[in-house]
Amino acid sequence: MKNIFIIGVGLIGGSLVLDAKKQNPNAIIYGIDHNEAHLSKALDLKIIDKVSHLDAINEADLIILAIPVDASVKLLPQLLDSISDNALIVDVGSTKQDICKAVENHPKRRNFLAMHPIAGTEFSGPEAAFLGLFKNKTNIICEVEKTGMKLQEKALELFASIGMRMRYMNPEAHDKHIAYVSHLSHISSFMLGKTVIEKEKNQRDIFDMAGSGFASTVRLAKSSPRMWTPIFKQNKTNVIETLEEYILNLTEFKKKMQNDDFEGIFHEMENTNHIKQILNGIE
Amino acid sequence: MKNIFIIGVGLIGGSLVLDAKKQNPNAIIYGIDHNEAHLSKALDLKIIDKVSHLDAINEADLIILAIPVDASVKLLPQLLDSISDNALIVDVGSTKQDICKAVENHPKRRNFLAMHPIAGTEFSGPEAAFLGLFKNKTNIICEVEKTGMKLQEKALELFASIGMRMRYMNPEAHDKHIAYVSHLSHISSFMLGKTVIEKEKNQRDIFDMAGSGFASTVRLAKSSPRMWTPIFKQNKTNVIETLEEYILNLTEFKKKMQNDDFEGIFHEMENTNHIKQILNGIE
Repeated sequence: MKNIFIIGVGLIGGSLVLDAKKQNPNAIIYGIDHNEAHLSKALDLKIIDKVSHLDAINEADLIILAIPVDASVKLLPQLLDSISDNALIVDVGSTKQDICKAVENHPKRRNFLAMHPIAGTEFSGPEAAFLGLFKNKTNIICEVEKTGMKLQEKALELFASIGMRMRYMNPEAHDKHIAYVSHLSHISSFMLGKTVIEKEKNQRDIFDMAGSGFASTVRLAKSSPRMWTPIFKQNKTNVIETLEEYILNLTEFKKKMQNDDFEGIFHEMENTNHIKQILNGIE
Repeated sequence: MKNIFIIGVGLIGGSLVLDAKKQNPNAIIYGIDHNEAHLSKALDLKIIDKVSHLDAINEADLIILAIPVDASVKLLPQLLDSISDNALIVDVGSTKQDICKAVENHPKRRNFLAMHPIAGTEFSGPEAAFLGLFKNKTNIICEVEKTGMKLQEKALELFASIGMRMRYMNPEAHDKHIAYVSHLSHISSFMLGKTVIEKEKNQRDIFDMAGSGFASTVRLAKSSPRMWTPIFKQNKTNVIETLEEYILNLTEFKKKMQNDDFEGIFHEMENTNHIKQILNGIE
């Protein structure tokens, strides 16, 4: 893997190539991004070695696609058309059905590996990238059997070497479950932020009253709308289902309060407390 | 302040007396708790110097009331009946209207200071207590003018010395605003935990897919139901109002998704992104 191309030099893509470079010191990291400022920042930060362009993609051994999921779905078939027979493209998007579908009949389907590294922060752009983001993180891989065997091996070796735990799922199961454990959290956080900001817009000093609990719960409301809008769009059906269940649970909690059923409120919370055990190992 | 009594040797009370002892090395810290295991743990951890009982309360110079808010409202008038004329009781509860109302006509009202230190973690009990929890945290004080001047001075000096920023509000404003910036966060987190646990109960390994974003958003669902149920009960009207607005915002978000209004979804998120600036200084 001499020539590694990163398309989208943001938090995820940038962090991945920092790790890839550490594992392959002789590799040259080429950066492609429509945002010129991000490219020069990525050069300054030594995230990439050189700026490149899509018309040079045939020189790539490995291409990491780390752009918003709607852009990935459009670009991936064109990339497959242009790459060499031994090159591999991986994507890192938070939805997997649409992208797998987009290339299911592509003659070079075997040159693509669909994955979702479960890692990140609420920040974005190359400044947010850091070495080691993926250590001990889960990497969900979809339809691994559709990727050429030697290319699978090359990719899995690299991702294992940077500390990721591999998990294999089909794209439908991935999108259904990730709606619960990731996409819904983002909406709950954004809407919590909205509710408080709306109510308190004329009383900014009220945020003096906010503590670390509030900060933790609205942290994801700092996330990039440009990245998250296409995720919600691609995973619309699953996300709406999670939202309906969440709204129902909140409405039942409210009704219990209205009916002075505080024993019920106690049990609601007690039953959810075992999230402690579930979260062990994530935090 | 020689004799400091802490009623409730948990996270908040325990942390407060650790700080109070550091500022007053000659003080003796007496612990009162109906939980014997917490008392011996607190002794072991040197959070308290001695175990005591309510019938010794007349020996106290300072009493910190750090028990669930329903228990505080019941106990405070009895404590005021029993303490010496120069003693001060402070409470640390997350609701302030009921407790202020419970003693508004008490002949020893001047011996009480109502406060709410905005600090804590999702953990509870004496093991969760630590020195320095309150450094640079906000301490909201209600009806300060109803506390005797010398007692005000003594308390404010102590709380300033352990690093707290004092803010003054009336109990109604406190309970209204804290519903938004604290109580609602807890419910959003508990119900998020519930929604995901319910859905995924037969698929525990799905939590392998959860990342730090999910962990952050459901962190508060680890909180103590015994502490939080009476808070929701006392602040029922305000909390229901915040819940209704939150549910409305979630429902509108869902409708935008159902109508494929992803430009609207983008703007919802973009408008909430400035929570970044608001949170600066909290985290």
